[in-house]
Amino acid sequence: MEDINFAKLDMGRKDRTGFPETVFCQGKADEHLAEIFCRLYERNGEVLGTRATEAQYRVVHEALPAAIYDKTARIIRAGAENKELIGNIAVCTAGTADIPVAEEAALTAEFFGGHVERIYDVGVSGIHRLLSQTERLNAANVIIAIAGMEGALASVIGGLVKVPVIAVPTSVGYGASFGGLSALLTMINSCANGISVVNIDNGYGAAYIASQINRLAVKGKVR
Amino acid sequence: MEDINFAKLDMGRKDRTGFPETVFCQGKADEHLAEIFCRLYERNGEVLGTRATEAQYRVVHEALPAAIYDKTARIIRAGAENKELIGNIAVCTAGTADIPVAEEAALTAEFFGGHVERIYDVGVSGIHRLLSQTERLNAANVIIAIAGMEGALASVIGGLVKVPVIAVPTSVGYGASFGGLSALLTMINSCANGISVVNIDNGYGAAYIASQINRLAVKGKVR
Amino acid sequence: MEDINFAKLDMGRKDRTGFPETVFCQGKADEHLAEIFCRLYERNGEVLGTRATEAQYRVVHEALPAAIYDKTARIIRAGAENKELIGNIAVCTAGTADIPVAEEAALTAEFFGGHVERIYDVGVSGIHRLLSQTERLNAANVIIAIAGMEGALASVIGGLVKVPVIAVPTSVGYGASFGGLSALLTMINSCANGISVVNIDNGYGAAYIASQINRLAVKGKVR
Amino acid sequence: MEDINFAKLDMGRKDRTGFPETVFCQGKADEHLAEIFCRLYERNGEVLGTRATEAQYRVVHEALPAAIYDKTARIIRAGAENKELIGNIAVCTAGTADIPVAEEAALTAEFFGGHVERIYDVGVSGIHRLLSQTERLNAANVIIAIAGMEGALASVIGGLVKVPVIAVPTSVGYGASFGGLSALLTMINSCANGISVVNIDNGYGAAYIASQINRLAVKGKVR
Amino acid sequence: MEDINFAKLDMGRKDRTGFPETVFCQGKADEHLAEIFCRLYERNGEVLGTRATEAQYRVVHEALPAAIYDKTARIIRAGAENKELIGNIAVCTAGTADIPVAEEAALTAEFFGGHVERIYDVGVSGIHRLLSQTERLNAANVIIAIAGMEGALASVIGGLVKVPVIAVPTSVGYGASFGGLSALLTMINSCANGISVVNIDNGYGAAYIASQINRLAVKGKVR
Amino acid sequence: MEDINFAKLDMGRKDRTGFPETVFCQGKADEHLAEIFCRLYERNGEVLGTRATEAQYRVVHEALPAAIYDKTARIIRAGAENKELIGNIAVCTAGTADIPVAEEAALTAEFFGGHVERIYDVGVSGIHRLLSQTERLNAANVIIAIAGMEGALASVIGGLVKVPVIAVPTSVGYGASFGGLSALLTMINSCANGISVVNIDNGYGAAYIASQINRLAVKGKVR
Amino acid sequence: MEDINFAKLDMGRKDRTGFPETVFCQGKADEHLAEIFCRLYERNGEVLGTRATEAQYRVVHEALPAAIYDKTARIIRAGAENKELIGNIAVCTAGTADIPVAEEAALTAEFFGGHVERIYDVGVSGIHRLLSQTERLNAANVIIAIAGMEGALASVIGGLVKVPVIAVPTSVGYGASFGGLSALLTMINSCANGISVVNIDNGYGAAYIASQINRLAVKGKVR
Amino acid sequence: MEDINFAKLDMGRKDRTGFPETVFCQGKADEHLAEIFCRLYERNGEVLGTRATEAQYRVVHEALPAAIYDKTARIIRAGAENKELIGNIAVCTAGTADIPVAEEAALTAEFFGGHVERIYDVGVSGIHRLLSQTERLNAANVIIAIAGMEGALASVIGGLVKVPVIAVPTSVGYGASFGGLSALLTMINSCANGISVVNIDNGYGAAYIASQINRLAVKGKVR
Repeated sequence: MEDINFAKLDMGRKDRTGFPETVFCQGKADEHLAEIFCRLYERNGEVLGTRATEAQYRVVHEALPAAIYDKTARIIRAGAENKELIGNIAVCTAGTADIPVAEEAALTAEFFGGHVERIYDVGVSGIHRLLSQTERLNAANVIIAIAGMEGALASVIGGLVKVPVIAVPTSVGYGASFGGLSALLTMINSCANGISVVNIDNGYGAAYIASQINRLAVKGKVR
Repeated sequence: MEDINFAKLDMGRKDRTGFPETVFCQGKADEHLAEIFCRLYERNGEVLGTRATEAQYRVVHEALPAAIYDKTARIIRAGAENKELIGNIAVCTAGTADIPVAEEAALTAEFFGGHVERIYDVGVSGIHRLLSQTERLNAANVIIAIAGMEGALASVIGGLVKVPVIAVPTSVGYGASFGGLSALLTMINSCANGISVVNIDNGYGAAYIASQINRLAVKGKVR
Repeated sequence: MEDINFAKLDMGRKDRTGFPETVFCQGKADEHLAEIFCRLYERNGEVLGTRATEAQYRVVHEALPAAIYDKTARIIRAGAENKELIGNIAVCTAGTADIPVAEEAALTAEFFGGHVERIYDVGVSGIHRLLSQTERLNAANVIIAIAGMEGALASVIGGLVKVPVIAVPTSVGYGASFGGLSALLTMINSCANGISVVNIDNGYGAAYIASQINRLAVKGKVR
Repeated sequence: MEDINFAKLDMGRKDRTGFPETVFCQGKADEHLAEIFCRLYERNGEVLGTRATEAQYRVVHEALPAAIYDKTARIIRAGAENKELIGNIAVCTAGTADIPVAEEAALTAEFFGGHVERIYDVGVSGIHRLLSQTERLNAANVIIAIAGMEGALASVIGGLVKVPVIAVPTSVGYGASFGGLSALLTMINSCANGISVVNIDNGYGAAYIASQINRLAVKGKVR
Repeated sequence: MEDINFAKLDMGRKDRTGFPETVFCQGKADEHLAEIFCRLYERNGEVLGTRATEAQYRVVHEALPAAIYDKTARIIRAGAENKELIGNIAVCTAGTADIPVAEEAALTAEFFGGHVERIYDVGVSGIHRLLSQTERLNAANVIIAIAGMEGALASVIGGLVKVPVIAVPTSVGYGASFGGLSALLTMINSCANGISVVNIDNGYGAAYIASQINRLAVKGKVR
Repeated sequence: MEDINFAKLDMGRKDRTGFPETVFCQGKADEHLAEIFCRLYERNGEVLGTRATEAQYRVVHEALPAAIYDKTARIIRAGAENKELIGNIAVCTAGTADIPVAEEAALTAEFFGGHVERIYDVGVSGIHRLLSQTERLNAANVIIAIAGMEGALASVIGGLVKVPVIAVPTSVGYGASFGGLSALLTMINSCANGISVVNIDNGYGAAYIASQINRLAVKGKVR
Repeated sequence: MEDINFAKLDMGRKDRTGFPETVFCQGKADEHLAEIFCRLYERNGEVLGTRATEAQYRVVHEALPAAIYDKTARIIRAGAENKELIGNIAVCTAGTADIPVAEEAALTAEFFGGHVERIYDVGVSGIHRLLSQTERLNAANVIIAIAGMEGALASVIGGLVKVPVIAVPTSVGYGASFGGLSALLTMINSCANGISVVNIDNGYGAAYIASQINRLAVKGKVR
Repeated sequence: MEDINFAKLDMGRKDRTGFPETVFCQGKADEHLAEIFCRLYERNGEVLGTRATEAQYRVVHEALPAAIYDKTARIIRAGAENKELIGNIAVCTAGTADIPVAEEAALTAEFFGGHVERIYDVGVSGIHRLLSQTERLNAANVIIAIAGMEGALASVIGGLVKVPVIAVPTSVGYGASFGGLSALLTMINSCANGISVVNIDNGYGAAYIASQINRLAVKGKVR
């Protein structure tokens, strides 16, 4: 643990868990952000930050020129190029408006070393779009199902496959979607087997647990 | 309007709307219930009451021997036998626990003169159960989609058919289903076209509007 | 189904359901929006998009000069002029602030080929405004009832007519209206018969199902 | 103030406010209840208790034989017979299931010396039932409007009269009525003028403020 | 009723209820607002509009130079100067941040012809501020109690006086005040007698019903 | 820590914190309850259990004859007689229905060695009941303020004293009290200084922290 | 799919997913329950039903004498004895009252062929109880973390291990636990990595996905 | 009490409670703010205001040049330099984003004369960060535990120490954190002993009650 006054960085995380510590950029002060990125990059040779604004990226990039930015995913990365990617994680969305959350998940999963299959705009209101992807779904070790509005995608996928489904409700919608609460409740109440849920818009969190599962499937338990 | 002290019965309803007034039994005092059933039966030659307990049925039956009781649907009926049934209303449920609400809808729709197709236990977690019924769904003038838990059935049906879907959330579920609130929100937020929603467990209400639509499809607008 | 990378367009929808696919503009990226409008216009000779900002309109208009914009309804349309309009759909509002949602409904219904009667500012706090419109209400095949605040309009209309009422709660209000939740609950709990409900501010959704019902009333079921 | 150990009785209330202290029976221990009734009866020559069970009545009656019980209103009274009743308070209900709350209000208002007009089962889904009572409504100094389910009654009455309307939401309903929350929100959001709201099922509270207003209308402000 | 296309103005309201129709400015289009103010001013010789922005005032003032604006209350008025004010309405606030709602109430009550006593910053956390005003409170015919945060003011006033209290929850607060919901629940659940509640921040609505009560107290019931 | 299979008892708690481990009886199996009481009594020479039913008491009493039961507080105690009680903890309630929670708090505080002053039925709707107790309130080191319904008691006490107030919302109430949620929100939003809040009906929790504060006031910090 | 009138049984599930169909007993009619158990037992040679009452067990046992019942877990099983159990699934609870949900999870996981480690009563309020189990936690392929009240257990475990954590909120608690909602929100908002959540009290659902993950860890992906 | 028209300042507060009146700046008009600061500074020789914007600071500074501003804590102070600070109040945060609330608490506690230990970024997802601070925690008289997201920090601290813990939920988080509601519920439902809770983001309120407790621990009860 490195105590840099305003924060306590977990420098041993990569050795301990296999995945390095990442940065949740939202709400962090500019002066802190640059230092955190640099310290982690020094220690791990790579670093990833989520929920970053473009302004935050410019601050980080000044201090760490290796940093690049993905606008859709709102992710800052450095030093994670050309990884060998293992296994198979399918990232599915119900609609096109869910893509930012999906890209946050996909880039995170790739940063943690997983191969990702993107399967977008396959929402249940046109079920044949999803059914035509059954083979790709069944090839995955774990599936991330991302949907806003009524969030029914996870239930239908859960009924089609035999691997775990990590469901991500999104804040896409209006009116009684209540910022994603409706989709969250749908997914938590799913009558399908093999589904568990992370926070609204939490593409990162879904990718983390999916990466753990994908690693277990490829390498088994390594202590 | 007939004012019988404790209530004001709408005796002109059948002439005015084509459907006679019915009785919402829940919370009505025994002494009132019997009188209301008798008055409406006298006037219309038929009567239907919903949300009736068996004890209420015994009270009504004493006063109106023609009354029969359906325990699953919790409906008391009299004088509605051997109707000619027109059109086609499909009543679908996600699971077996939704059947009581479905039977409330089905018996009500038949009381109002509609032909009913029952399509039960076709929830989205095993999507092929539903897909195998596509032909029957497409034969209907209007579809009632009944589901508890995550309530995703309506969205999937909405994407498969071209006729209106009346969605009924049910209180089937536990935990974060919050007595049907989760299913209600799912249905209200549906991304599919052609779906509107009635109250939780309101099989009667769905059947009423479905009967109006079925009649419009068969007879057109009659003034 | 046409897969244009970021989206899967349902090109067969018009043949299958009679109504062409439309565009939900909210949250779509500019570069995607223009392409989607053009593809659908090419395929169907007409296109409609809802919840469009003026900025989005300018983007679409650049690529598709036939597009026009209705500021109140926030709708972009192209190629839907001079349609023959059938049947009769009444669109009612409780107040003047509900008119944007009403115009979204009315323009959508006209796009889908229905004749629309606009009956605005007839809220229940001055019941005689509504009663004076009884004849126009009774002439409709289906009624769309739009109200914010306490949302009581649908119940009163439901008691006056014999045709289905599609209720649309709006986010008009303040304080305990909770962005339309109050009106939604009022409508879902309506004690009147023949009412079903769509999402808050969902003029489009109400118009879609009303158009299905209007078509059934005029043409009967066509397979 | 009389301190009887487990409670502090407000013996000066009748002199101070014109209305004697009453007893909220719910949740009170049997041994306490009898003593409270006797003390207040001794002091004021009359006493009224609300939300009393029949078992509580038997306990009170044993100690205070003058006590009588109204089962519908769940009210225990003693010594309040043959009062001269002044003014005019209209008590209206939407349905028959709201009558228990209405009778709690009516008996309370009579106990506080007001003349009561009962106007029951005039809910908005059959608006002509209410319109036929316009004259009686307009004769009142103040109106209590009681409704469950969607609770729209208060708004419509508010638009018909020029006197204050005290709205009482009831827990009558099911599903998304959420124990009266829906009706409460409807009434609080009313777009009609001259409406204020008390707690769900609080017939007593509505009667208290209505009695204050009725007294002001008859006697003006008396200090 | 005057139908000016986008709205239906209630021109007979002043004759019918004694109080002229007023304008709820929020959400109204500029072009509509000016016309509504002019029409009502022509008809009634006075007009009042609530929830008006300064920009809206400028639009109205251009068309109706007699209009003046109160920035704190966000009220536009014309032609209501030098009224004889009758009776006594006390307007109380818990804190200084509640003053805008209080001024909306006070100016409205004065517009409707009532004399107003302003008693501000007397919240219950320093109870002696309120107790020192007991005499002024007891001089009123009706009291408007305005409070945000925990909203306890109404209960304490209700215990001190014998006249009706109209409680107004405000959105003043943060965190778990949930935009005034907390204060609303406090007031609705008040254990004090003689309290009823209007919507969050609804100073106008409280003033309307208080004006009705004040008029009853001064003039009795006038038909 | 003693591991007795189904539970892990914290035998060192008394030495570590000064207060022995207690038993939350609700939901515990009978066979477990008796053993837990006996083990803790053996270790500490005293034991206290909260939220115990009479049936649970009989089970415990069989195994531990020293156990006695307080029906109002629903507390089982053994071996805690004749303690010397230090300091001064005031336990106040708004109404008589709050007494069970108050007694849970009072008996717990006495078990932990504090002297308790009971000040019951001093709710804010009759503020003089509370003001007459000002001297007793000011004599306390810490005050527990217990109230249901609108829960305003804590705010008023907070304004009268200079010591900490621990507020306990209770589930006493009906309708929009939502099982104590209303009182909880009131207390959390209190505008008075020196107030913090525990869970609904959590008399035990309030007594625990009050006992810590009372001990600090009498003995200072002891390590 | 076998259609037995009232239900559609998924007979191919075991072949397709490796896990046979199970029975959710809650709300099922007695006559249906026995038949469903028998059919599934015939087909798969084993059967498991969750949320079963003792009365339901007696009905099933009559028809299927091989059935046994676990009262704590409320599970009916037949034919699942002496399985070889693979891998390692840790089932942890915060308190003793969470054990029924834990046993539902543990028995289900064992039915699906997983080895289970039970680690009960290790809630975060006594963190050393949990820390002393770190070695056992780290030996698991996947961890099920079960907690009611504030539900913090999952976050702390998530920070200690490198394998996925499936969090189960329980309805254990009172007051503001709102039937498990509080624990659900805690778990969904966890700041720890590698956590996803199932429905309140859904031990079965957690065991299902944990069994999928455990199988992946032991056998890798098998198609 | 000094009545300055728009407000009633409590000038005797410092004498009465030991702590001078402070200013809640949010929502106060500029012209009022300057006067309030000056009056309080004159009377007490020191003044502190919370939730102040930089713009408000400039207004105050103009009138009161002694005023200084802390941007992180959003606090304006004057005349509180070089106080002797007594006792020991530990202020802990779960993450770095909680620091603004923590600084509001810390500066307030110092203003009221307490010595503060800052222990930041010790959230439960990396429990060893917190455990390494056990000694500092145990040295405090009272602990303020500040956390957003799932808010589990307070429970874990409560299990580690023997002094009171004042828990502050923060609005840090996203999705289902619902602006701090999730953390609030977690803390209110804490299964640890010795925890009570203040409003979301209410660093000031936590510091006030902690200062009372700290003073009791150092000086005992002073009347």
